[in-house]
Amino acid sequence: MLDYDDDSLVTNNHPSSLLVPTLLSCTSKKRLDGADVLTAYVAGLETQYHLAHEYDLEWHVESGWHATPTLGIFGVVAATANLLDLSPEETEHAFNIASSMPAGLRQNFGTMTKPLHVGHAARSGLTAVLLASEGFTADKRAFDEFVSLYMGGHDDTRPELELEHDWLSLYDTTYHLKKYPCCGNAHAAIAGALELSQDYEFSTNEIHAVTILAPEFTKSDLQYPNPSSGLEAKFSMEYAVAKALVEGELVLGDFTDEQLDNEIVEDLRQRILYEGNKDIPFGDFETTVEIELQCGTTLQTVCHEPPGTHENPLTDSEIESKFMNCATQTVGRTAAARALEQLLNLRNVSDVSKICDSLRR
Amino acid sequence: MLDYDDDSLVTNNHPSSLLVPTLLSCTSKKRLDGADVLTAYVAGLETQYHLAHEYDLEWHVESGWHATPTLGIFGVVAATANLLDLSPEETEHAFNIASSMPAGLRQNFGTMTKPLHVGHAARSGLTAVLLASEGFTADKRAFDEFVSLYMGGHDDTRPELELEHDWLSLYDTTYHLKKYPCCGNAHAAIAGALELSQDYEFSTNEIHAVTILAPEFTKSDLQYPNPSSGLEAKFSMEYAVAKALVEGELVLGDFTDEQLDNEIVEDLRQRILYEGNKDIPFGDFETTVEIELQCGTTLQTVCHEPPGTHENPLTDSEIESKFMNCATQTVGRTAAARALEQLLNLRNVSDVSKICDSLRR
Repeated sequence: MLDYDDDSLVTNNHPSSLLVPTLLSCTSKKRLDGADVLTAYVAGLETQYHLAHEYDLEWHVESGWHATPTLGIFGVVAATANLLDLSPEETEHAFNIASSMPAGLRQNFGTMTKPLHVGHAARSGLTAVLLASEGFTADKRAFDEFVSLYMGGHDDTRPELELEHDWLSLYDTTYHLKKYPCCGNAHAAIAGALELSQDYEFSTNEIHAVTILAPEFTKSDLQYPNPSSGLEAKFSMEYAVAKALVEGELVLGDFTDEQLDNEIVEDLRQRILYEGNKDIPFGDFETTVEIELQCGTTLQTVCHEPPGTHENPLTDSEIESKFMNCATQTVGRTAAARALEQLLNLRNVSDVSKICDSLRR
Repeated sequence: MLDYDDDSLVTNNHPSSLLVPTLLSCTSKKRLDGADVLTAYVAGLETQYHLAHEYDLEWHVESGWHATPTLGIFGVVAATANLLDLSPEETEHAFNIASSMPAGLRQNFGTMTKPLHVGHAARSGLTAVLLASEGFTADKRAFDEFVSLYMGGHDDTRPELELEHDWLSLYDTTYHLKKYPCCGNAHAAIAGALELSQDYEFSTNEIHAVTILAPEFTKSDLQYPNPSSGLEAKFSMEYAVAKALVEGELVLGDFTDEQLDNEIVEDLRQRILYEGNKDIPFGDFETTVEIELQCGTTLQTVCHEPPGTHENPLTDSEIESKFMNCATQTVGRTAAARALEQLLNLRNVSDVSKICDSLRR
């Protein structure tokens, strides 16, 4: 429940949160090498991209669905069907079985139920594949019915995908690694606020007010102006920006219940105004941060690409450090470092279950 | 996967298919007496009735949702929260957690995935309750969001329920036990066809054609004019009526893959015309069966209430015989008879887990 995963603007979801644990769980059924697992992962990712591109993702998300499980379940089906060598017919049944299982509401963001969506959908997708591999049947039109109910039907206005060419560019331009451990829709504002505070070196108590103008669609995710728990704080634009300005950075430990009990952050949070801009297209980050100082000076910046996006990628050492921060929540540094070494060399690992062993508590 | 369960016109679903196994599973967590289990069952049933009555069930079903899991999951939440003594706050969280889990498409009727819906939703509802009982949280507006997405929003045109008075009449008038082991929407046609064949004593090869005029909404469930498996045959109006006319009754064994290989039934099935009548309100059974004999005579009947409905209930011995037919698919006659005796006296059973023991293979 770290809310620190990868992020895809094309699918408006966190593709790896379902794919990685499900693929690793398959190593208990079958000996799998790293290249197999990578191929299956790509199949899972491409399937989600395809769904998001072919159908009306904006309608889906704005209707209230949480795209991580509702698209991700089909990513899991594609990935595990690939890994477990299902026939085309079995794979088709698996997709149609899974069409009866997607669920997850954005309304539950900021509660424990958001990460539950991920586990529920990952289990459901893998269940569909295992059932299909044993001869379980579904209706051949069930997936079309899923599309009609959950995605607003087929969107004929979209251009045909040219697969070979487009998938690679989709990867390159849309797959982000979060630098900050909170909702990705707050990242451009956090980056903008930190940029101003680093460039102008004012202290927190010199700030009179902060105004954030972010894309309108971010408002329904960042629904806690006044968070009452660490979980809600991850979905609070106001808290995230206030905490970043006070601390000069944002780390995993900043989103605990205890951290909310901080007068300086609390005081600044109440002077942050967060507004939605309807002119920015769905999926764009463009966010304006304006800081008005007590002295009357107003500082402003516009962030188009927060750190972790393709245009502003994390460095290798930032990625390694993020992995170590996450993994050491559960296992010791030695085990985490061993797993990292194997993961960085995944293509050449002959038995992926050994990585799971390294990460076992 | 017998498709032989109870049937509710108010909820357009099979309320006990989720409630009974889930409640029985709770006997492994806690010693429960029969009165507790009955109370919890009623809570589960009332909750589904409330959902169907308060919101737009017709929209829900006609959109493509399968109401057995999508309403049933909340029945399971209410029933098991009652049985496991959750606090009101925990129960509210359980409803809001479960709001992120309903799924199931009517498109998958006639395949193995239809009964999978039931197990998937029963597990999800119980999971929500067990999580809530351990302090797991959800958003307080998630259930409203479920209603908005799945039920077409709140239907203000419906009259307020007068609970104490109405629930009892809902039970009495809307809760059916299937006499025939196939989709309930075919029952009025089956009963009408059997009535004509008993009253006029023609033989099958004297039939020139059969015309069935059933409510329009039955057409989307009974989607297999030409079934290719026993599962599809349960959702085939044409097969069910042909088989009933040939055999003079319909029993569990009539819906196996092997039974489809029958020339006489097959020949008659192809002479059955099944049409939808848009004038009959959603939920009514009214079905006209017309049989034209080779000699030119035309016989006609209209069935308003097939056997098993409130107006035309099964006898006690029919119910007992149905239980024995179902239970002996799994356990021997002695064990089934012992379980039946305990179930008929459920209110006075001091430890319901003993009934489960009787039914264990």
